[in-house]
Amino acid sequence: MLTALAGGVGAAKFLAGLAAVVEPSKITAIVNTGDDFELHGLAISPDLDTVTYTLAGAVNPETGWGLRGETWTVMEELAARGGQAWFRLGDRDLATHLYRTQRRREGAPLSQITAELAASWDVGVRIVPMSDDPVETRVTVVGEGEIGFQDYFVGRAHSVAVTSLRFAGAERSEPAPGVLDALIGAERVIVCPSNPLVSIAPILAVPGIEEALIKRREDAVAVSPIIAGAALKGPADRMLRELGHEPSVVGVARLYAPLVGTLIVDAADAGRASEVEGEGMRCVVAPTIMSGPVEAAALARAVLAA
Amino acid sequence: MLTALAGGVGAAKFLAGLAAVVEPSKITAIVNTGDDFELHGLAISPDLDTVTYTLAGAVNPETGWGLRGETWTVMEELAARGGQAWFRLGDRDLATHLYRTQRRREGAPLSQITAELAASWDVGVRIVPMSDDPVETRVTVVGEGEIGFQDYFVGRAHSVAVTSLRFAGAERSEPAPGVLDALIGAERVIVCPSNPLVSIAPILAVPGIEEALIKRREDAVAVSPIIAGAALKGPADRMLRELGHEPSVVGVARLYAPLVGTLIVDAADAGRASEVEGEGMRCVVAPTIMSGPVEAAALARAVLAA
Repeated sequence: MLTALAGGVGAAKFLAGLAAVVEPSKITAIVNTGDDFELHGLAISPDLDTVTYTLAGAVNPETGWGLRGETWTVMEELAARGGQAWFRLGDRDLATHLYRTQRRREGAPLSQITAELAASWDVGVRIVPMSDDPVETRVTVVGEGEIGFQDYFVGRAHSVAVTSLRFAGAERSEPAPGVLDALIGAERVIVCPSNPLVSIAPILAVPGIEEALIKRREDAVAVSPIIAGAALKGPADRMLRELGHEPSVVGVARLYAPLVGTLIVDAADAGRASEVEGEGMRCVVAPTIMSGPVEAAALARAVLAA
Repeated sequence: MLTALAGGVGAAKFLAGLAAVVEPSKITAIVNTGDDFELHGLAISPDLDTVTYTLAGAVNPETGWGLRGETWTVMEELAARGGQAWFRLGDRDLATHLYRTQRRREGAPLSQITAELAASWDVGVRIVPMSDDPVETRVTVVGEGEIGFQDYFVGRAHSVAVTSLRFAGAERSEPAPGVLDALIGAERVIVCPSNPLVSIAPILAVPGIEEALIKRREDAVAVSPIIAGAALKGPADRMLRELGHEPSVVGVARLYAPLVGTLIVDAADAGRASEVEGEGMRCVVAPTIMSGPVEAAALARAVLAA
């Protein structure tokens, strides 16, 4: 059994690679829900959906999120009505949010709804939200104060400087059913190539998860989302710098060393392997850029071999 | 100034006819919201939308509700996800519900949202919900007990017998801003050709509205929704019978006589005019079947002349 901590696009690509080389039913993905928010009264879980759509082979390959061949009738009409169309929800994608919201109103926990959606897509990987309780990533940005994560990430195209992060509600949250068992029982724990500060940290903020991960340190492998000082996608590099971390594999190693025994870094960072090891992690060099399914599967094999 | 009490399709057609023969800004439509409900977390107001879409010239002419040229991508996908697709919401129509729900979450009252939507469609008629407070038409049906109105009307295709109706929350509701003034100040009050029991009665159940209407009895005209013992659309005839009323213009007259001075009946019911007058209403015979805009405008003229 393999258990992975996952954020959005990078994690989803990696998990698809992993599911190509390991029987999918042996994989549990524990997914960040700190990005979840409500808009138009709908419960939106961006990372859960990105992971589900990608594992279903239905994701939009251009963006890495949303659905392939999506249409935008509702958003166009919403704009015509004067509504909020800044967070683009495709027509087919909206069906997911309608489903999730209705099931929530019926009292179903997010973990159950997530399993139902995954089953409807015939996804074999077990996808579990980090918690059934609301945990909200809040971002303090220069000049504005604290705003919601999607207001930062999408509303401001993550182009404003961040001065602090907080995971509101985390202290009162519990891991979703199965999360701790999946960490404790896994042969290997994998920290996917996701933003350490806003994709992985919210998962670790749920009481009990970090403690469980620490116990599995020797069997845990992380993939650095930073390659040669930059994030392939998203603001991880800038955000690391803004929050006082080094935007490099060494900075990532400093964050993960207490929890994870091994860090996979890209060949571009081979020259910094000894510095990573100086932080107390084993360092494995492997190609980490997942240009397509072949590269994602190769990275998955490297993680399993590490 | 003209003020009309309105339900869904029949009222909307009549109001479009009225707006063709009177300056639209002189017309206020007070619309039933007892059919409003929540599905997928969305605030859905079927009668408000039918009136708005019809006055915008955007309604689906085949059904009398929903939007012309609608697409169904979201519903098809929702069905694929295993979701509730029994209440068909078109893609463009969904934008209305997203808009309304988001604005409700922002604290806007339904009356303001309704005005915003009408403005976005360039509708000149003032469309006002009967109340900004929730009033829920509940239907007790044989063999099942009490269910929601849409569960009866759409979910069971209004094919089960009704034993009672109730307007939950009405006793705690207030007329929306402007409703009482529109009734008090109107030259003529019109009760549109709508189901008396589930379209007009919920409006009258809002404290203050029936009292205001009674004072305007001599200037009030109703159009019978029953023609030769049958409803053109919907279950009004069966529902009248099931609830102990005569499904005829005479039964309608018995319901409206305390509130409305004049009843317009179709030519098909000319033979029952004296019975209507026996109930204490003036009776005017005119063609009431609105096959198209020409017939709707003619009926509007007949109401104004009555």
